[in-house]
Amino acid sequence: MTESVLDYMTRLGRAAREASRVLARISTAQKNRALEAAAGALEAAGEELAAANARDLANGRDNGLDEAMLDRLALTPARIDDMIEGLRQVARLPDPIGEIRDMRYMPSGIQVGKMRVPLGVIGIIYESRPNVTIDAASLCLKSGNATILRGGSEAIHSNQAIARCIQQGLAEAGLPAAAVQVVETTDRAAVGALISMPEFVDVIVPRGGKGLIERISREAKVPVIKHLDGICHVYIDRAADPDKAIRVADNAKTQRFAPCNTMETLLVHADIAARVLPPLGDIYRTKGVELRACPRSCALLGAGTLEASEADWSSEYNAPILSVRVVDSLDEAIAHINHYGSHHTDAIITESFTDARRFLTEVDSSSVMVNASTRFADGFEYGLGAEIGISTDKLHARGPVGLEGLTSEKYVVFGDGHIRS
Amino acid sequence: MTESVLDYMTRLGRAAREASRVLARISTAQKNRALEAAAGALEAAGEELAAANARDLANGRDNGLDEAMLDRLALTPARIDDMIEGLRQVARLPDPIGEIRDMRYMPSGIQVGKMRVPLGVIGIIYESRPNVTIDAASLCLKSGNATILRGGSEAIHSNQAIARCIQQGLAEAGLPAAAVQVVETTDRAAVGALISMPEFVDVIVPRGGKGLIERISREAKVPVIKHLDGICHVYIDRAADPDKAIRVADNAKTQRFAPCNTMETLLVHADIAARVLPPLGDIYRTKGVELRACPRSCALLGAGTLEASEADWSSEYNAPILSVRVVDSLDEAIAHINHYGSHHTDAIITESFTDARRFLTEVDSSSVMVNASTRFADGFEYGLGAEIGISTDKLHARGPVGLEGLTSEKYVVFGDGHIRS
Repeated sequence: MTESVLDYMTRLGRAAREASRVLARISTAQKNRALEAAAGALEAAGEELAAANARDLANGRDNGLDEAMLDRLALTPARIDDMIEGLRQVARLPDPIGEIRDMRYMPSGIQVGKMRVPLGVIGIIYESRPNVTIDAASLCLKSGNATILRGGSEAIHSNQAIARCIQQGLAEAGLPAAAVQVVETTDRAAVGALISMPEFVDVIVPRGGKGLIERISREAKVPVIKHLDGICHVYIDRAADPDKAIRVADNAKTQRFAPCNTMETLLVHADIAARVLPPLGDIYRTKGVELRACPRSCALLGAGTLEASEADWSSEYNAPILSVRVVDSLDEAIAHINHYGSHHTDAIITESFTDARRFLTEVDSSSVMVNASTRFADGFEYGLGAEIGISTDKLHARGPVGLEGLTSEKYVVFGDGHIRS
Repeated sequence: MTESVLDYMTRLGRAAREASRVLARISTAQKNRALEAAAGALEAAGEELAAANARDLANGRDNGLDEAMLDRLALTPARIDDMIEGLRQVARLPDPIGEIRDMRYMPSGIQVGKMRVPLGVIGIIYESRPNVTIDAASLCLKSGNATILRGGSEAIHSNQAIARCIQQGLAEAGLPAAAVQVVETTDRAAVGALISMPEFVDVIVPRGGKGLIERISREAKVPVIKHLDGICHVYIDRAADPDKAIRVADNAKTQRFAPCNTMETLLVHADIAARVLPPLGDIYRTKGVELRACPRSCALLGAGTLEASEADWSSEYNAPILSVRVVDSLDEAIAHINHYGSHHTDAIITESFTDARRFLTEVDSSSVMVNASTRFADGFEYGLGAEIGISTDKLHARGPVGLEGLTSEKYVVFGDGHIRS
């Protein structure tokens, strides 16, 4: 008799929970050894990875995947090198686990502080990119968590080939095989089971399209670290340096169009609009960016500018389209961002200390920036070494989630036979 | 036409969201002024509070509330003094908001760090104790959050009288009245509305019986900071100092029987059981504690000891009952705690550095202690100044939740026109 999907997932969950108890107490050196050994296994497995990926690509073509999806699915030699380098980078990161902070004596005589600990078991649900298997597994392992990875069915052979390399690394370091488990069935019921086992899974991280993330958030019986919209703003303040403003507003939109940290709306103070909008209009036109502007900015941006509709202010284009609006004050800019934005990443360009300070305090977003491009909002650029995703939630992790976001803190109390009176 | 409960709660939610924008940017001095003024208003309102509370108590008696509930409901002069002192204590606590940490230069030249910010709007749902109104409102206000308080219908007049004092404090400090709102309807639909408005409410903190908390956790469409079981253990290690062991095991059980941080199961290493269990048996018998023990500890505890059933190991008695078990190793103790416990608070009594270190690392609980009574697990004892509750969750806040647990962190990025290449 074959095992049901629910029984299979329960078996994975129970094994992950057991492995998490081991992972919580192993040494930093052992975790690093597993990561290094997995990197070595990936280096040695070039042909196997290529063959597995070729199968996925062929199936994908047969199943009519579009070119963008096939591109995300492809494991080129350069991408394999990136995965290997990623594993080694995570091995080099400081181990967050066991860090004790703020240990202080209390009036009762006890000492109280906090110790950083793993979350336990992390379920990752993702779509076509097989490199997520390595990114997620390495961050979870380094932070002492067991992982259950559920990739897209279109990448199943690639993911399994990568999983074999991780298994080799775990074995070489003497760690339990269940520390990292890749779900081997493509049955969709596996996702439903994974998000409904609070006894075995402590948190779910979905990575993929908005539809996937919304569905998982709605149905999960386990906390979800999630990323929804990225409606990012650059606000060019009255006190901006025009050269910095133009450079950043150009980069934030045009360096890449698709990422979630790309600017979607440019706000410009009325006093500086005539100075910065005409050159920005030229730049955007040259780079093929469609402009949708408020009546006041339309004229300044030049030929071909469209009129923005109300819906534009809350649109995430992920495309060469930009909405532009002139505002009369810093207050109006902050109110616009807090109302229409997605609390992701927003930047002010200003030389005014006071305006910068107000923007940082009052804009309610996971990243707030002064004189820097929104495109910097990312785990690598923030020095986290890698990221498992960007959280637009406020509870627990906010912004790019690296090792620390995969941990919790418990209180530690030291006494000498102290009792409460 | 009268307003529906849903419309009323939506109006409160919208007002709270607007007030939260103001609270996020006001000064520490203003927040402290509101807290001090509310304390002054409480001092002046003694008669009004007594009259309101007398109404609630009379209604409670008419409605057949039991003595324990009437006791919780009573606003004695001592309890009013505690509320006044609580407000002043919170005013004296350092303001967590705006704290910036770990600001570091990245290879790109940008500086990245984290800034502590309020969560936004916090909904508190609680039962009969009116003093929760002050505890919750003061912590939320100091941490820059707007609050919507929904107390028990049995305490409605007391809560409203307290709310008037808070309103006076807010007004004297020039803060919006919607910074702290007490729900004025006793209609139960108000709770359903409060936990279903993610656009207006960022987190819910339920305080009360397990039934209330489970129902809210199940139905909420907003994150919940919650506290469920408190099955706390003391483990007397082989290397324990017997005097410290007896003192702590006595205090952890008998100092008070009802709190969640009271010990429910005592674990004793076989090598030290004959030394510590007979005197502990005498102490517990003298203090009227019913003992339910494993076969090996039964004989050592003396007359009247009952045999423990499997269900005892996972029972939260909140009563003068204790389960006792002899174990053969530290490993067995840790496994017992992680399996049967509720991840709340667990203590080891030992002189062994190595055993203490292993217990701290491997016991998966929100508070882990060495040579101290579990009864210390509390916001006041931990120096948080006050607590809004104890979280047994791992995500976001874990253990006693004070000001920091009511905050989030956002990334701040400083540049000088930096762009991503």
